[in-house]
This record gives sequence, structure tokens and C-alpha cells, in this order.
Amino acid sequence: MADGTKDTNSSNQMWGGRFASGPDAIMEEINASIGFDKKLFDQDIRGSIAHATMLAEKGIISSDDREKIVTGLETIRIEIESGNFEFSRQLEDIHMNIEARLANLIGPAAGRLHTARSRNDQVAVDFRLWVKEELIKTERALTGLIEAFLDRAEEHAATVMPGFTHLQTAQPVTFGHHCMAYVEMFGRDRNRVRHAIEHLDESPLGAAALAGTGYPIDRHQTARALGFREPTRNSIDSVSDRDFALEFLSTASICATHLSRLAEEIVIWSTPQFGFIRLSDAFSTGSSIMPQKKNPDAAELVRAKTGRINGSLIALLTVMKGLPLAYSKDMQEDKEQVFDAAESLELAIAAMTGMVRDLTVRTDRMKDAAGSGYSTATDLADWLVREAGLPFRDAHHVTGRVVALAESKGCELAELPLDELKAIHADITNAVYGVLTVEASVASRKSFGGTAPAEVKKQIAWWRGRN
Amino acid sequence: MADGTKDTNSSNQMWGGRFASGPDAIMEEINASIGFDKKLFDQDIRGSIAHATMLAEKGIISSDDREKIVTGLETIRIEIESGNFEFSRQLEDIHMNIEARLANLIGPAAGRLHTARSRNDQVAVDFRLWVKEELIKTERALTGLIEAFLDRAEEHAATVMPGFTHLQTAQPVTFGHHCMAYVEMFGRDRNRVRHAIEHLDESPLGAAALAGTGYPIDRHQTARALGFREPTRNSIDSVSDRDFALEFLSTASICATHLSRLAEEIVIWSTPQFGFIRLSDAFSTGSSIMPQKKNPDAAELVRAKTGRINGSLIALLTVMKGLPLAYSKDMQEDKEQVFDAAESLELAIAAMTGMVRDLTVRTDRMKDAAGSGYSTATDLADWLVREAGLPFRDAHHVTGRVVALAESKGCELAELPLDELKAIHADITNAVYGVLTVEASVASRKSFGGTAPAEVKKQIAWWRGRN
Amino acid sequence: MADGTKDTNSSNQMWGGRFASGPDAIMEEINASIGFDKKLFDQDIRGSIAHATMLAEKGIISSDDREKIVTGLETIRIEIESGNFEFSRQLEDIHMNIEARLANLIGPAAGRLHTARSRNDQVAVDFRLWVKEELIKTERALTGLIEAFLDRAEEHAATVMPGFTHLQTAQPVTFGHHCMAYVEMFGRDRNRVRHAIEHLDESPLGAAALAGTGYPIDRHQTARALGFREPTRNSIDSVSDRDFALEFLSTASICATHLSRLAEEIVIWSTPQFGFIRLSDAFSTGSSIMPQKKNPDAAELVRAKTGRINGSLIALLTVMKGLPLAYSKDMQEDKEQVFDAAESLELAIAAMTGMVRDLTVRTDRMKDAAGSGYSTATDLADWLVREAGLPFRDAHHVTGRVVALAESKGCELAELPLDELKAIHADITNAVYGVLTVEASVASRKSFGGTAPAEVKKQIAWWRGRN
Amino acid sequence: MADGTKDTNSSNQMWGGRFASGPDAIMEEINASIGFDKKLFDQDIRGSIAHATMLAEKGIISSDDREKIVTGLETIRIEIESGNFEFSRQLEDIHMNIEARLANLIGPAAGRLHTARSRNDQVAVDFRLWVKEELIKTERALTGLIEAFLDRAEEHAATVMPGFTHLQTAQPVTFGHHCMAYVEMFGRDRNRVRHAIEHLDESPLGAAALAGTGYPIDRHQTARALGFREPTRNSIDSVSDRDFALEFLSTASICATHLSRLAEEIVIWSTPQFGFIRLSDAFSTGSSIMPQKKNPDAAELVRAKTGRINGSLIALLTVMKGLPLAYSKDMQEDKEQVFDAAESLELAIAAMTGMVRDLTVRTDRMKDAAGSGYSTATDLADWLVREAGLPFRDAHHVTGRVVALAESKGCELAELPLDELKAIHADITNAVYGVLTVEASVASRKSFGGTAPAEVKKQIAWWRGRN
Repeated sequence: MADGTKDTNSSNQMWGGRFASGPDAIMEEINASIGFDKKLFDQDIRGSIAHATMLAEKGIISSDDREKIVTGLETIRIEIESGNFEFSRQLEDIHMNIEARLANLIGPAAGRLHTARSRNDQVAVDFRLWVKEELIKTERALTGLIEAFLDRAEEHAATVMPGFTHLQTAQPVTFGHHCMAYVEMFGRDRNRVRHAIEHLDESPLGAAALAGTGYPIDRHQTARALGFREPTRNSIDSVSDRDFALEFLSTASICATHLSRLAEEIVIWSTPQFGFIRLSDAFSTGSSIMPQKKNPDAAELVRAKTGRINGSLIALLTVMKGLPLAYSKDMQEDKEQVFDAAESLELAIAAMTGMVRDLTVRTDRMKDAAGSGYSTATDLADWLVREAGLPFRDAHHVTGRVVALAESKGCELAELPLDELKAIHADITNAVYGVLTVEASVASRKSFGGTAPAEVKKQIAWWRGRN
Repeated sequence: MADGTKDTNSSNQMWGGRFASGPDAIMEEINASIGFDKKLFDQDIRGSIAHATMLAEKGIISSDDREKIVTGLETIRIEIESGNFEFSRQLEDIHMNIEARLANLIGPAAGRLHTARSRNDQVAVDFRLWVKEELIKTERALTGLIEAFLDRAEEHAATVMPGFTHLQTAQPVTFGHHCMAYVEMFGRDRNRVRHAIEHLDESPLGAAALAGTGYPIDRHQTARALGFREPTRNSIDSVSDRDFALEFLSTASICATHLSRLAEEIVIWSTPQFGFIRLSDAFSTGSSIMPQKKNPDAAELVRAKTGRINGSLIALLTVMKGLPLAYSKDMQEDKEQVFDAAESLELAIAAMTGMVRDLTVRTDRMKDAAGSGYSTATDLADWLVREAGLPFRDAHHVTGRVVALAESKGCELAELPLDELKAIHADITNAVYGVLTVEASVASRKSFGGTAPAEVKKQIAWWRGRN
Repeated sequence: MADGTKDTNSSNQMWGGRFASGPDAIMEEINASIGFDKKLFDQDIRGSIAHATMLAEKGIISSDDREKIVTGLETIRIEIESGNFEFSRQLEDIHMNIEARLANLIGPAAGRLHTARSRNDQVAVDFRLWVKEELIKTERALTGLIEAFLDRAEEHAATVMPGFTHLQTAQPVTFGHHCMAYVEMFGRDRNRVRHAIEHLDESPLGAAALAGTGYPIDRHQTARALGFREPTRNSIDSVSDRDFALEFLSTASICATHLSRLAEEIVIWSTPQFGFIRLSDAFSTGSSIMPQKKNPDAAELVRAKTGRINGSLIALLTVMKGLPLAYSKDMQEDKEQVFDAAESLELAIAAMTGMVRDLTVRTDRMKDAAGSGYSTATDLADWLVREAGLPFRDAHHVTGRVVALAESKGCELAELPLDELKAIHADITNAVYGVLTVEASVASRKSFGGTAPAEVKKQIAWWRGRN
Repeated sequence: MADGTKDTNSSNQMWGGRFASGPDAIMEEINASIGFDKKLFDQDIRGSIAHATMLAEKGIISSDDREKIVTGLETIRIEIESGNFEFSRQLEDIHMNIEARLANLIGPAAGRLHTARSRNDQVAVDFRLWVKEELIKTERALTGLIEAFLDRAEEHAATVMPGFTHLQTAQPVTFGHHCMAYVEMFGRDRNRVRHAIEHLDESPLGAAALAGTGYPIDRHQTARALGFREPTRNSIDSVSDRDFALEFLSTASICATHLSRLAEEIVIWSTPQFGFIRLSDAFSTGSSIMPQKKNPDAAELVRAKTGRINGSLIALLTVMKGLPLAYSKDMQEDKEQVFDAAESLELAIAAMTGMVRDLTVRTDRMKDAAGSGYSTATDLADWLVREAGLPFRDAHHVTGRVVALAESKGCELAELPLDELKAIHADITNAVYGVLTVEASVASRKSFGGTAPAEVKKQIAWWRGRN
């Protein structure tokens, strides 16, 4: 550029009015992360305190400097928590914002904090700490949701309802048994969360830029101070690894899938056609135009969150694809995906816990539905095998004819008179009516994990001992 | 609950300390959209003005009411634009925030605005307008990026560089030709954007909740007033359709894929090993620990955005999967995905346009690389077919031996003496050297769309006429 | 390796029994594409014939050679079609399989076919042709599905059913109107398909490896011969572009989303609780254990295909992310994703067309449901605005009280006696009953695109003119 | 249909020539799974044998029947393994194919096998077994890959190369250290695989259709017989759970991400510009047109597989979204995604193990690159802090001036004369040259997990003890 004084004009010319701002503004906008990574302020401060403490203990900085650093950082923490910290986008990220403020507060000693450390290992340790703590919160939230289901399952261990496959009536089950299916799902989620914590429980602090450092640091000490099991074993991997974020997201996606299935059931069961449950007002909304509406908005939103969380998972998987070692700036895209998924998951679990605790179970509607649609046809077939000694194939055939008869008469199986049953198969006796009620059907399924109320109660007790 | 006065306590008990807030707070948090849909304030106000104007013209409301409504809405627009509007999360969304403020400003007339309209068609028209306008901005941004490439292509129509396949040197091409490949890609993106606009150019306003309305409204008038080609033809579809959002996202994803390929090349070409280009300082960053570093951060971030945009696409596709008609609350998840993808795409295109305009082309490095690695071996084979009448299979075989010879001597093809070439095949003459230079190779590829500088210039001219 | 004779053993040692096969076998397995790209045999043969014909016309090969080539290729086509072609994995792909067989059939002339062409442009033209033809098939299939809906819409233009939002009864609509919502969706899909064809309608043949060629080929001629609008304009882009595959997949994903919504409705409507429709046996299955079951398997499978197609979309987007120009082997992953998605989409559209044509509409169940749940409450509010001159807010309030009264009495709105209505608002007259029936409600919604049967018929006519 | 004899014609009419086949053919095509689930034959047979054995032991079937069943199933296994089994699509799936053949072989006893079992728990146990065994194979394959890296790391513990961040030279590291970063990644993958096995290690057999059974079965026995830790605890969850498939896919996706990073490095390092490694011929391919080419196809294909596996993950997550309990037919889409991802992952790990073992490390090229680009600038800054007592900020500034000087002279840092260094900062002494070589730099980074060869060897030993 021939004439520096025309900078603004020529910039305007260069960018041709196609976007409002010149290169510097675009770069600042695409580059800065302070808009989202300020969420890490507490982890950043704790990481720095652990680092400074270790540096002093190893004689790399003086204890006087350490004291200044720690006091300064504690001041900054209070400033941020109280909303009195001015974040600057020109300082790019949370690390530089805090560092600049620290220099401001304590002078040259601030510069010594960066000894034997780089932003690469600093952001890695901050983010890992955050994810670990989020996983611990998730574990607790899942425990709360499981507890809500255990309570409802206990209350309804013997409440009959239709068990569905293909959303068609299959066999009667109990609502308690259905609740316990979700306990299993969220229990598995909690297991995955616990293992995810175990997998990430290593501190990358001290990996420096990527090669480690020549300063005589003690990485085991900082790991311990921050509550990690141990330090990471390879400095290149330490700054280029984001497995902990990917595993958080994949674990969240599977959990969200479970929540979406529950949400779907709540939506369907709340329709006038099903009417199995009634949501509390707290989790419903009305319509500004249709005065009669009561909509299961919370359940719908939970169902939708699975899309959002899957999106975050695929986003970060895609970002990480094909990145050469060690750190690449692409990895800055990790945090927003995790933050957003974490917030969605927290909210979805909380809303579901609330809905499960709050919803009214319409046992009459459930029972009516359980008894319709020939739901005990399998029980009849099983009775024929057991009592009349028929091979299953024949029993199935006989039952099919019985169902056809009931259909033609517009009645339920138990309403067919004995003589008409006998006309179909002579060995049928009065005893058959004992297996045709939904209560009998349910009570009979006593196999381990079956829907018999006694069996359901055993499983509740097992889970109570583990929650 | 036996005792209403204990509400707070029992709520605390019910939620068991597992999450800080009771059901109302959770519901408000998961339900409210004002945090993001306030972005639609301008579209909402324009939609309401068009609606009120039509209602008055059709005699459904008085022109006095219309005037009050319009004036009130204009006031609100100014309040929002100047930052003097207080958004309330309890009012859920932008529509209710504006409606409440309007009632506040003009009294009962505000209530008449909602005649023959529901939030379902209101949000549909607002969001469609926003997406349409974003697509128009994208079209313009792509035109700017194409222009940047046309300028660089013109400048470097004859600058030789290695053409790569599998990131291995294949045949010499020109940098201008390479630039024009991106012109084709972004030109296709622009076509898709234009068709996406065409696909969505229908106004859902007047579909009401889902069934249309009994009021004698004129949907063609509001469509025209808002700049749409025509009104939608089915009221149920009008409020349950989000194709325009999905198509925006899929178009953005394909465009982002192109940007990621360009970004990858910038990253690789900026390494000291390749050294084909030098990024301007504006789009690079240094390191706080390594004083010698100059990192292509902007390119890396653009590359990463493709993950983010793909994530948004998959998120919304997943949200929409299996939703029964018409509106479901799940669809509230549409906006954040589109807003985020739009911002990412805008920024990525702007950053790329800047980088393309700014980067220094190191023609010497390109030329050196173009001439190494036996990049003109194919030209030799073609010469043998053409001049010596060899079948291609034999020509390929002869060339393989020539390459092997050059490799063993550690020299380039053109550096082999004629007698050694003749020893491999007697028909080789001095004329062969004419095809072994990169310039000759490039100049020879005159097929339509080929890399010959003259051909590249033709394509530049073609595009200039269309940009 | 010191001793070549021990090759096998040392290979065994090297791979340490960890996988059954040595490097060559692994490479062959990961590298070969013949397992799936043989699907392109017809496109490959047509491409080669077009190329050979042009080469002869331009004097690049003799017409004698052209004749041999064409005859040979036609022979190969018959061999493949009749199942008498032996595909070899060692020959990697369909191109080499055909080329080798051609050499076998016609001798040295086969080698001349490869003049001025490389596998890079050959596979690009083959695959583009295939995708174009698949898009044309999809367009036709969508036309068939639209027609099925138009027929059902015509039949049921006046059949009332509840219109849902949030899967809760909102306002009455007609089943014909509901069908027409799907016509709009699949109509948009068809539009996208048509534009996708327009976007890809360029022939890459003649781009050669990446740089074009020095032979005096005529790319316009081969483009025309293969039915393309024109040749591509940039040889690098020609071999590195897979936009046509991505656009096919994104178009398919949006269409699959529509199919999944329809599938969900079929599943829900087939439950005994809803009972709006009955699927034909052709699209249902029974249970080997539960004799009473009739499951909507086909609808469930269609619903699931959206996951599969979204998966293919994200797979290819991820594959293409960050690939430097021009061709990289990663791109070989393009075909299986497209083939699988195409097959899924074809099948899903065909199954849906069948289900829509076959299903029994249970108009009684629909009508009963339409009249319950206070679905005409909005009509009452609108009546109060229109006839009694109430502001909408007051009308909404009054209606709310009427709904509460009906709820407490366990009756529908139209069953409330006039005096009780008058007690709530004195201006209510006998005329109000005229708007409280579902038929009246539906008939009143005459706005453009509304649910009134007359309006629905207009839209059917409009579409008939365009299908 | 009035006239059954016209079936074919009317079907033709109904489907209007739009697709070749009538409803039955379409249903068969979309419904049948035998095309892919025959892969489960061995698991299905083992599951049936375990079930029959338990039934006999509990007295539910006779031991004579058990013997017939077991013998029949063993015969079928041999028929399938030897390719002499005729699969029928009309029999839908592997379970019915085997069952039909069994009836054929042993008569009515075959019917007794289905006692207390349904296809829902049968497919669940078959698929779980398959996934468990695939995970065990994956664990072993990862161990092989880790071993390959440990061997290369040992060989090159002291081989210097540039460490990159942003693909720009950052600091020297050793190639062994770089290899060990991958050991960490694949070690984490293996941990995830092990936990995935732990999570799925429960047998769903005996859950029957969804409710359990009234037969006195022993689910602990069948679980043990099939090698599961225990039976599942809830019969509804047992048939509706596909977490094990999702967790397999997410684990595979993260592993594939690691493989893609390695593949990217292999592609970049194989370019003439980098030239750090040379791939063996076994894992490269040539070009049919360009005789000089040697392409890293295998690495590119591995890189691409990450897209494919991510696609499968998102496909199944999407399929499972919002499915009400218990079994829905959508879930039939689970197997192909897992089979395809498993095959891709197996192949990718095998190919990578081969490439890692085979590739030639060009230590000279690595060393040259390590010493260029001022890679030891950080060492100079650290020296100034340590030896000259400068605050880091000043040290960084001084180093920046030294780098600028070297740049202007076109030399490396170590080539600058002492007096010129002293001119920049007087405290610099001759000792500084000791830290400016790459060997010194690398040797100095002795922090835990750092790149110093001694440290790298420690980590190799640690892993050797665990592999």
C-alpha cells in the first residue's frame, strides 16, 4: 500500500462493500473465544494456582511471587463472580483476559506464572476439569431421575397397562415394570458416565506447548492438587487429545436417545385417544388462540434435544477428523459443542425428573386398554401347551381361531362362553378363564426380570440398594 | 397437597435438592425462546404491519386501529434497535414480548392484531423471511468470494504449480486454473442458494393455527407486501414445514465443505515444507511461547466450521424426524441451528475472501515444485503415442523406464541426455525436450476446461460475464 | 529382507497372527471397489462408447478401432447383463474389469480407448450419469406418490378429522386437507430433485487426470452424446467435485424426513387407541408368538430409513471435508453411500405409495375424534368477536369459561343449553350452535389454503394440472 | 376386489407402472433382513442350543427333544458354513430360516424350541453376542496396533523431527515420542472397548416378547452358557435396548477419528515436500496414466472410513430417537450399521498396523526439518530466563529480535555469531549454543511425559508392561 494514511479507504475498496468490516475485524470475530470460554474462569484460576504452588515448591519461582499470584487470582475470581470483571475480546480468550488482569494487579510477578506452561496445556487442563465436573453433575442428575422412577415403580408395581410392540397392544405389563425399563436405561447411562470420568482422569498440565519442558516441574503434584488421578503420559497427546469431549458427547447422545423415547411416550400417552397420563400444569402450556389446549411442551422439547446433542457430537467428530498432531486451532470449536450439549442434557434430565414425579397416572384408562385388543392371547396359547399338551404350533393355531371368534362377536376373550371355546378345541376347560384376565397374565410372568409384580418389586429393591 | 401454604417446602422436598429450581423455573428455562428468537424482531414487526394493513383493507379491523398498531410497532422497532426494549423471559418469545409492549403502548387495539392469525403462522412467516434474507446475503458474499478468485486467477493465469492427486505431484497446472476450480464450486453453491430462495418464496401468513381462518383475509396481499412470490397453498403444511431451514443448512454444509478444502490447502501450502503461499499477518497469529510461530488460525477455524454446520444440519434433520403434523414444540429447536450456521458461514466466507485477496503467492516455490517429481511423465508418454506412433500401453512402459533412469541419476526428465533416451527407445528425438518443461506441458492442455493459460482466460471471461 | 524365499514366513511373523492376512490381502480388501462399483457398468460402457466415437471423429483413433471398441463393449454389456461376466477383485474396479476384458476381446485396439482420458474423469462421468438417472427415477416416484395422495384427497376432501398440534386436538380439518399437506411436501422434494438435475447436468469427460489434455478432443460432443447439457468448465474441479452426490443425499434426507412424519402418523393412527386407519395386510405383519398382532412394519421401516439416509449424508460430507484438490482416494467412499441411500429412498417411496393407496380410512373414528376435545372452541371465540363485537382477549376469556363449564358437565360445547351459555355471556344467541359443529367449523375456513372442502378441491385441481 | 383372478392385472393398474412390483414384492423387499442378518447364524444356533438345554434341564421339554434340536442345529451350522444352506427371503430373517430348516430336519420337536422365547429376545441375544465378540476382536486388533507403535517408538526414541502445532514447526520432538502419542490414543480406545464389553455383558434371553414368561425358565443358566456375566434385569428393556450397538458405534467413531489423524499425517508426510516417510509398495498404488505416481491410497481410505463410521453412528442414533417401548421394527436397521462399521474399523486398524510396521522413516529429512524454522527459539527464551535471570516477557522479546536477525540473514539461530547475539542482549554467552541444537532441545525436555528420549523410553516400558 503506497499511502498508509489511506488505510481505511483502501480497506473499504479491497473488501468492496461486501462485508462491513476489514480483515482485522473479521479475524478478531472468527478468532476470539472469550465469548464462550469465560465459562472456564474458575477452572483456569484453580489450574493457575496449582501450577504456581508447584513452581514455588520446586524453587522455580519464589514463594513471594507465588503468594502474589494466588492473591491476585483470588481477587480476579471474586471480580468475575460478582460481575465486576471487564472481558475484552481483543485479549481473545479467558486465559489472556485473566493473565492481563493479573499483570495489572500484581505487576511483573504475573509473567512468572507462565513459566513451564503454554496456552495449549492450560486450555487442555481447564476444559478437562470442566468436563469432569459436568460428568459428576450428570451422574447426580441421573441418580435423581432413577429415584423418581423407582418411586413411581413402587407405587405402580401392580398397575396393569398394555405392553406395546410396534405401538400395538402386545401383552399386559405393569406400569411399574415399564418404569423399571427406564431405570435400566438411565442406570446404563450412569455407568457410562462413571467410566467416562475414569477415562479422562489425567492431568495434561505441564505438557507445555507440546514437547514437555526443561524446568524441573512436578506434574504429579499439580495433578493431585486438581483432583486428577495422575498426569498424562505423553505431552504431544496431552495437547492434541479431545477424547474426553467426544466421550462426553457420545455418552450424552445415548442418554438423550433414552430421554427422547420417554418423551415420545409422554406425548402419545397424553393424547385424548390414549389418555394414560395427565401432565401437571407446570410442564404443559396452553394456546393463545385455542382455549381448550393443554400441550406437552416440555416433553416435546426434551425429545427435540436429542437432535441438538447428536448435532454437537457429529460436529466435534467432524472437527477432529484428520487433524495432524499436535494442537490445531480447529480444536477451539470443541467447547461450544460441549457447553451446549451439557446445558441441554442437564435441562432435559431435570425436566424429565419433574414430569415423572408430577404426572398423574390414569390407572383406569391403562387397565381398560390392557384388557382390550386380545392382549392375553399368548396366555391362552401357553395354557394350551401347558395344560392340554399341544405343541406350540397347534396351540397358536387354536388361539388364532379363538381370537377370530371373539373379533366376530365383538367381545374380549374372557367373554366367550365355554361351549364355544370347547367347539374350537375340546380340551379347553373352565380353568382357562383363570389365565385370560390381565391380572392373571401379569402375575404369571415370574421369570427373572418379568412383569409379575413380585418380580418388579425385587428389581426395585435391587436398585434401591445401588442408588 | 393437603396444605397449600406449604407449597414451597413441599416443592423443595419433591425435587429433593437434586436441582436448584422447582418445576416452574425448569419449565421456563426449557420453554422460553426469547434468548434467541429476538433476532427476529424486525421480521416480526414487518409481518404484523403487513397483517394489520391487510386486515384494515379488508374491513376486519378499523383503519384507526391499523394506524395505532403500525405506529406502536414502529415505536417498538426503534426501542429494540436502540437497546431500550426490556425483553422478558416470562413472555417466552419475541412475539409475546412485542405484543405485550404493544398493548402497553396502544391499549385494546393491540388485541385486534391477533385476529385471523396465530403464533404458528406468525413464527413461520418471521423465520422464513429471516432465512430468505440470509440467503440473499449469502448469495452476495459468494459473489464477493468468486470475484476475489477471478482476480487472483487473472493475475496467475500462467503461474505454474504442481497439480496434485492424492497430494502427490501429478501434472503441472497453473495457479489460475486451480483458483478457477474454486470459482466453479462457489458458483454451484450460489446456484443452490438461488434455488433455495425460489423454493421458499411463499408466505405462510394467514394459515392461522393450522386450518386457515374464517375471516375474509387476503393472503396474496400480505405475501406481496412481505416480498414473497405467493402465499403457501396448504395451511397445515404452512405451519409444520421447515424445509426452508433444512435446505438452508444443507446448502450451507456443501458450501462449508468447499471452504474446508480451500482451508486445508492454505494450511498445507503455508508450511515451510510447501511454502507455496504466505498469509498476511491479518489472518495469522503468533504464539505467546514460541516467538518464531506464524499460524494460519483463520484457515483452521474455517476448516473447523464445516463440522459445526454439519452438526446443525444433522441436528435439525433429527429434530424433524417423525414429527406428526402440524406444529410440534420440537420445532422451536430450528432457529438456533440456523442462526448459528448462518453466522458461521458468513464469517467463514468473509475470512476466506480476505485470505484469498491478501495471500502472497510464492511463484518461485510453486514453479520449483511443478518441475520436480517427474510431473511431465504423462507428456512424454503422450508424445510417444503422438509422434512415435506407439500404442499407449507401450508408451507408458517406455516412460516408466525413463522415469526409473532419471530417479537413479537423481535428475529431472529434461536433464537426461538424448542418447540415454534413445537407448531406451530409438524413436525419441530432440523434439521431445519441447514437451518436458512445465510451461510446455501446461500450454499443451488446450482441451475445453484444461489448464492451458489461454483456456483459463476464456473461463475467467465467461465468469466475469456472470458475476 | 535378506532372504526372499522366506517372504511368506516373515510376513506371517510380521503380522504376528493378529490378522489373518498379510499386507497384500489387506490392501486388496480395502482398495478394491468392484464389489459395489460394478453397478456402474452400463454408465461406464456408454461413456466409453461416447469417448471412442468422438476420438474417431476427431481422427485421434481410426474408425476401425472405434468399431472394434464399440462392438467389444456391447459384447461386455451383454455378458454382464446375462450374468456371464467374471468380475475380478484384483482388477480393482469396474473400469479395469471392463478394460481388461475388452483387451481380451479385441486386442491392442482396447489400449487406444484410454487415449485422452484417465480413470479420474471416467469415474466422474460414470457416477454423475448414474446419479442423474437415479434423480429422474426419484422424480417419477414422487409424482406417483403425489398422485396417490391427490386421489385420496379427492375422495376425502370433506372427511372431517381432528387437526393436531402437539398431537393434541386443535381444530377440525379434513383428511383431504391433511393429504394435501403431504402433496406440498413431496412437491417441494420434486422441485429440489429437478434443480439437482439441473445443477449436475455437465459432463466431466475429457478432464483427464486433472489438467485436461493436449489431444484435440471435443468435449461438447461427448457431453451431448451422453445427454448432458454441456461439458464442465474446469478440469481440476471436474475430477474433484462430488457436489452432485452430496446434493442427491441432502435432497434424499429432506424427502426421507417427510416420509418419516407420514410413517409416524400411520403408526399412531393404526393403534387401537386412535384407530383412524387400517393398513392392508400387504403392508402389515403378524407375530409368531402373539396371534392377535397386526403390526405396521412397513411404516416403521420407512420411518427408520430417514436415519440411514441421514447417516449416508453425514458420511459423505465428512469424507469430503478438508480434501485438497484434485482427486483423493477418500472419494471412493462416495458411491456406496449414494447407492444405499438411493435404494432406501426408492423403496420407502414405493412402500408409502402402496400404503397410501391401500389403507382404509375409518371415517367414523375420525369424525368422533374431531368432535371431541372442544375442538371448536376457537370457532366460538371467533363468533364472539364477529357477532358480539368482543375484543379477542375478552372472547378468549369467555370461551375459556364455556370450556370449563362443558368439562365440568362432561359434555361437548354444542351440548350446553343456551341459558347456561347466556349466563356466561348475555350476547350469545341460538345462532352460536351453527359454528360449534365440526362440519361448520371446517366449512368456514375458506381462506386461501384453508381446510374448507371447497378450498381443498381447488388445490387438488391446481396440483392435478401440474402432476 | 370383485374378482380374485384379476389380481395381477389390478395390481398392475393400482401401481400404475410407476414401480415394477406390486405391494407384496415391495413389502418383502423392505421387510426381509436375511440379506444381512445371516451373519448372525452362529450366534443364533448357540443361543438356541443354550435355550434348548435349559428347557430340558428345567423339564419344559424332554431330553429327547433337546437332543434332536441340538443335533439338528449342529447340522444346520455345518450346512451354512459349507455353503450348502439355501437362504430364503420369504422366510424373512435368519431365525425363521433356521427354524424352518430345523422343522424340516427333525419334525415337530422343532416347534418346542420356541417355547418361552420370542423373536424379540432371540434377535437381542444373537446381536449382543455378535457385538461382544466383535469388541473382543477390536481389543485384540488395537493391541496389535499399539505393539506396532511401541516397536517403532523404541527404534526411534531419539530420532528428531519437528513437532508441529497448526502444522507449523513448533519445537523439536522425537519420532518415538510422536508414536507414543498414538499409543495413548489407541490405549484409550481399548479402554473404552473393554468398558463397552462390561456394559453389554448381560443376556436378554428369556425376556420373551417383552413381558417375560410364565414357564419356569432359568435365565441365569442360559446367560452363563453363552458367556454372559448375568441375565438382564427387565424384560421390556431387554428387547427394546440397543445401547450396546450405539456404544459400539460411538467407540468405533472415536477410534476412527484417531486413525484419520494418523492417516492425514501419513498422506502429508509422504509428499515430496515433506518426505518424512516412504510407504511400502504394499500400501501404495500407481497410476494408469502417470507412470511416476506412487499414491498413499490405503491411508486415504482409512481417513475416509471415519466418515463412514460416523455416518453409521448418526444413522442408528436417529433410528432410535423417539421410539416408544418395547420393540419397534425400526430397530431392524441396527445390524447393517454395526456390521458395516465393524468391517470398516477392522480393516482400517489392520491396514494401519501394516503401514506403521512397513513404512520407512527418512530420518535425514526429519532431522533437517527439525533444525529449520527456528524450532529452538523457545529454548533460547528459556535459557534467557534461566541463565540470564530475565523475566519471561523480556526473554520472549529478545528472542523475537534474534529470530528476526536470523531471518534477515537467511540462517538458523545456531549459525548467528556470538557478537551479533551479544549486540541484542549483552548477557548472552557462548553457552547459549548448547541449547540451540535440536538434540539438546529434545534432551532437555525431561518433564514427565516429555519428549526427551529417556522419558520416551520410560513410557515405552510402562506400556510394554500393559500390552
